[in-house]
Amino acid sequence: MAAAYEQAQKGLRKGGIPIGSVIVHNNKIIGRGYNQRIQKQSVVHHAEMDALENMGRKNADFYNNCTIYTTLSPCIMCTGAILLYGISKVVIGENKSFKGEEKLLMSRGVNVKVIQNCQCIEMMSNFIEKNPQLWKEDIGL
Amino acid sequence: MAAAYEQAQKGLRKGGIPIGSVIVHNNKIIGRGYNQRIQKQSVVHHAEMDALENMGRKNADFYNNCTIYTTLSPCIMCTGAILLYGISKVVIGENKSFKGEEKLLMSRGVNVKVIQNCQCIEMMSNFIEKNPQLWKEDIGL
Repeated sequence: MAAAYEQAQKGLRKGGIPIGSVIVHNNKIIGRGYNQRIQKQSVVHHAEMDALENMGRKNADFYNNCTIYTTLSPCIMCTGAILLYGISKVVIGENKSFKGEEKLLMSRGVNVKVIQNCQCIEMMSNFIEKNPQLWKEDIGL
Repeated sequence: MAAAYEQAQKGLRKGGIPIGSVIVHNNKIIGRGYNQRIQKQSVVHHAEMDALENMGRKNADFYNNCTIYTTLSPCIMCTGAILLYGISKVVIGENKSFKGEEKLLMSRGVNVKVIQNCQCIEMMSNFIEKNPQLWKEDIGL
């Protein structure tokens, strides 16, 4: 989660929305990413999507043995990507700022763990307070 | 759907997976895209995602008044993106080659129409027959 947080901070330093994600396979980080709405004017490169994209093309067996870490509870788009590729475990930094589709993930057999990390909570709540419109745009509201 | 099909054909001519999508707002096509797994080595730029990305950042009201056309029934990732942004209508070229998450879309209030277009069916079934491994990779199998 420290590495996912560092990705979020990297995004924040570049003027972006501070959500970060890393993907782990065999105890090794093999994908890193952060929200690219501002930096790349992207509507699809949320943190989890960006990490998946940066990890490159893999087969189903590979994905099944991955854990994705994300600083914030995943929205329905990122949830869909996690389910499409069959990532078996999701570790979530916090879901106090935004409660995503954890139930849908669990209903399809994904192992979901929420750790309510105080650094993740503080980072996101500060951002939302200062940038309510941008945040709404990012979650389609 | 003719425009979405043309996007798919464009992808096919470039050596890619022939799935295309367009987004319509006020009777005007404002986003076009096609599957970029081969061309961009992308795991997130499915046709619908690519069309959303190419359309750029919009607000919720705008998305609510859009219809997305796709040559093939949308997978869980693309379904998630459609739900995230609140696109209200999805027109699907066919669902015989692949049945995506139409039920999930409908359960959340999206208007879903499947037209079983014979050109879309032929294009996709031919591709899957010739490229079974690539197709499996694209849908996470």
